[in-house]
Amino acid sequence: MEKVDVAQIKQMDRDYVLHSWAKQKSVHPKVIEKGEGIFFWDDEGKKYYDMCAQLVYLNVGHSHPKLMEEFKHIGEIPLASPGFATASKASLAKKIIDVAPSNMSKVFFASGGADSNDHAVKIARMVTGRYKIFSRYRSYHGATFGAGNLSGEGRRFTVEPGLPGFIKFDTPYMYREYIHFESQEAMSDYYLDRLNSQIMYEGPEQIAAIFMEPIPGSNGVLVPPKGYLEGVRKLCDNYGILMICDEVMSGFGRTGKMFAVDHFDFEPDMMTFAKGVTCGYSPLGGVIVSREIADYFDDHVLMTGLTYSGHTVSTQIGCVTMDIYNDEHLIEHSAAMGNILAARLEKLRRFDSVGDVRYIGLFAAVELVKDKKTKDPLIAYGMDYGKDKVGLMTKFIGMLSEYGFYTYSHESSVIIAPPLIITEEQINEAMNLFEDVLTHFEKTVLFANPSVMSK
Amino acid sequence: MEKVDVAQIKQMDRDYVLHSWAKQKSVHPKVIEKGEGIFFWDDEGKKYYDMCAQLVYLNVGHSHPKLMEEFKHIGEIPLASPGFATASKASLAKKIIDVAPSNMSKVFFASGGADSNDHAVKIARMVTGRYKIFSRYRSYHGATFGAGNLSGEGRRFTVEPGLPGFIKFDTPYMYREYIHFESQEAMSDYYLDRLNSQIMYEGPEQIAAIFMEPIPGSNGVLVPPKGYLEGVRKLCDNYGILMICDEVMSGFGRTGKMFAVDHFDFEPDMMTFAKGVTCGYSPLGGVIVSREIADYFDDHVLMTGLTYSGHTVSTQIGCVTMDIYNDEHLIEHSAAMGNILAARLEKLRRFDSVGDVRYIGLFAAVELVKDKKTKDPLIAYGMDYGKDKVGLMTKFIGMLSEYGFYTYSHESSVIIAPPLIITEEQINEAMNLFEDVLTHFEKTVLFANPSVMSK
Repeated sequence: MEKVDVAQIKQMDRDYVLHSWAKQKSVHPKVIEKGEGIFFWDDEGKKYYDMCAQLVYLNVGHSHPKLMEEFKHIGEIPLASPGFATASKASLAKKIIDVAPSNMSKVFFASGGADSNDHAVKIARMVTGRYKIFSRYRSYHGATFGAGNLSGEGRRFTVEPGLPGFIKFDTPYMYREYIHFESQEAMSDYYLDRLNSQIMYEGPEQIAAIFMEPIPGSNGVLVPPKGYLEGVRKLCDNYGILMICDEVMSGFGRTGKMFAVDHFDFEPDMMTFAKGVTCGYSPLGGVIVSREIADYFDDHVLMTGLTYSGHTVSTQIGCVTMDIYNDEHLIEHSAAMGNILAARLEKLRRFDSVGDVRYIGLFAAVELVKDKKTKDPLIAYGMDYGKDKVGLMTKFIGMLSEYGFYTYSHESSVIIAPPLIITEEQINEAMNLFEDVLTHFEKTVLFANPSVMSK
Repeated sequence: MEKVDVAQIKQMDRDYVLHSWAKQKSVHPKVIEKGEGIFFWDDEGKKYYDMCAQLVYLNVGHSHPKLMEEFKHIGEIPLASPGFATASKASLAKKIIDVAPSNMSKVFFASGGADSNDHAVKIARMVTGRYKIFSRYRSYHGATFGAGNLSGEGRRFTVEPGLPGFIKFDTPYMYREYIHFESQEAMSDYYLDRLNSQIMYEGPEQIAAIFMEPIPGSNGVLVPPKGYLEGVRKLCDNYGILMICDEVMSGFGRTGKMFAVDHFDFEPDMMTFAKGVTCGYSPLGGVIVSREIADYFDDHVLMTGLTYSGHTVSTQIGCVTMDIYNDEHLIEHSAAMGNILAARLEKLRRFDSVGDVRYIGLFAAVELVKDKKTKDPLIAYGMDYGKDKVGLMTKFIGMLSEYGFYTYSHESSVIIAPPLIITEEQINEAMNLFEDVLTHFEKTVLFANPSVMSK
């Protein structure tokens, strides 16, 4: 292919490409010239710490040599559509089941997180014969109509009027509870009582599944209170409801264990995945189902599918990615580095603008406030969607980027989720930058002028 | 990666993989050992004419040397998430717009056909502020909740109860019209009158878009009567409704022109694509939008997105694929070979079991009947879904496969859609096989025992 220069790329991008979640006039994308490990360089030669692993998928880092090597031979593997068996599809399915919770049995492959969630909803309805689907406010599951209707935030509004039977319930949000709870367990009891009541009044025998990110990611890494997820599992068991965990962001080592559910004492009936399974080197997602669900489809038609289910290249890349996790002990490393990151995050609490820090493994969020006492959020809820992103958070993320700390935000929370290969030294370097930016931001923007406070 | 043998692949596939649209117990997948051009070989060394290009996507054939070569270098290209500009994404968008209808302006990239259709519906609603979506019976648009609700056949039932405002209308089906029409134009006039009436009674100002495969593919290559699509365009113009064409199957040379809409005298407002854009070498889909729609998003937020929008590897493979279409004159070749195929299909009309043959370019279907006079279909509608596939059509497709003619069917229609690189000689060889199978099928199965007729 003809070589194009950066100016041409940017011009063609402006002329021909529609960018997600943005007014196109306000999009001024950079070009990544090089990526290596946790770093990438833009078209002006500027180096960045990739502190969100692109979109929380590049767990093995940029330009991993084993994956670059694998591509050299991948053209030799014969392509096959879903009706065939392939070495890569079968092997990857086995590799995933080998590391999944013990009740898990088979994998249905899809293209990404969103469509995987759509397929999981369909499977739940097929297996149970019920149609209602519970999911949570403060969740994000993707932008297709199924995943979008599951999502409990503003990005759902463009898939509404929504699907009948999709019901929302609340996510515990320890930092912003109206009620004062004596303990995490007490908070869990409260939320489980509320959920039980909602199930009763929606009709337990109508409900196919409860769908949840075990740790909501996009919405600010909301680690649940103790006993909560186990309690949801018990409610599901009581009522014959399937429990489906969206591990698209949290899976494959992000939280310091293979899956987020591994931190807790329960097993879901299904799990959806994407991102980390290939680290984005090739598009792939899927649904992991329990033995019971797998058995159901022995004699019942699985009424869903797609052209690229188990795509040859994507599943081959997935196999190599799984080997890298194993060979390089990345899950254990993620846990160890998570401790380093946690210490640095706790130190942020001394800043006036830091309301909360939340973390598990290398999955973290820093929630910014205008006022620590009142917990007044840095930006009002929903103000970063549907309007120009020129608020305080946009400024803060822009400053981080100027300092070479690349990440993104959601509402008033900054996501920190670097490649799992990050070292202690790199964490400290990056978090030093973060503190510098925070200091600068407080001094020159947030607390520079008292009038900002009342905005 | 460790090498696994065929027996191991099949065992792991049985143990760990969920296959689409099937009872898992009835799935006995073959392994493709080698693919080359229009041929592939299974694990017993048996050679097949791939007469459906896998799932109507492998337009450039198996193991295309340029794509195999491209993979060798693709690992060197830095991965970038959707927020960045990349050479491959920008170039591919330009290459697509260069060959799209003249009113088309920008591309939003997605993962495959299904999610592209979901995104197109969302875009239509954003642009018009209306929520109703018209689509057709005898259509298939994919298995996500948006695409599934668009679909006008049995595969929709697992995404129901459905999305509010998704309305169905009829597809002209020239072979099976209840009314006798004097001409194709008269048939079009009838269907347009019916559609106009339905639009009036659904409320024109409520309707965002009319969504259609210009030539429904999965449902049997239903070439529309003359003037029909142009008439739908006029209705859309009258009422300010967007016209969206699903070119997932029909795009990229399948019909003998770049897009199916190029055969007609109108331009849609949006087109969705997948399959042929990369020929399945890497998963990719997208939405092409008109200048008017692109301009709308200059100042309005495009409220949709996905992690792999414009995936680096997939768009790079797309660029090379587009170059192959151009360098090898595959669109023109598809038209020329379409004429050869057409002649062979017309000759099939002499068989008692052939009710109809339909074709445009290398996109064709043979509709089988039990009785030519009554047009009694080979299998009753809907009998190939939700039940065991052991009917007459399953037997026929099995026989084709035994003879080395690989394809699939939908209802009573056999799909014929080989790679566009097929030669005249290969078409004749394959169609000789098809005739042999048809002869054998009629003699030994269909008309062997008169009792079959009344089944």
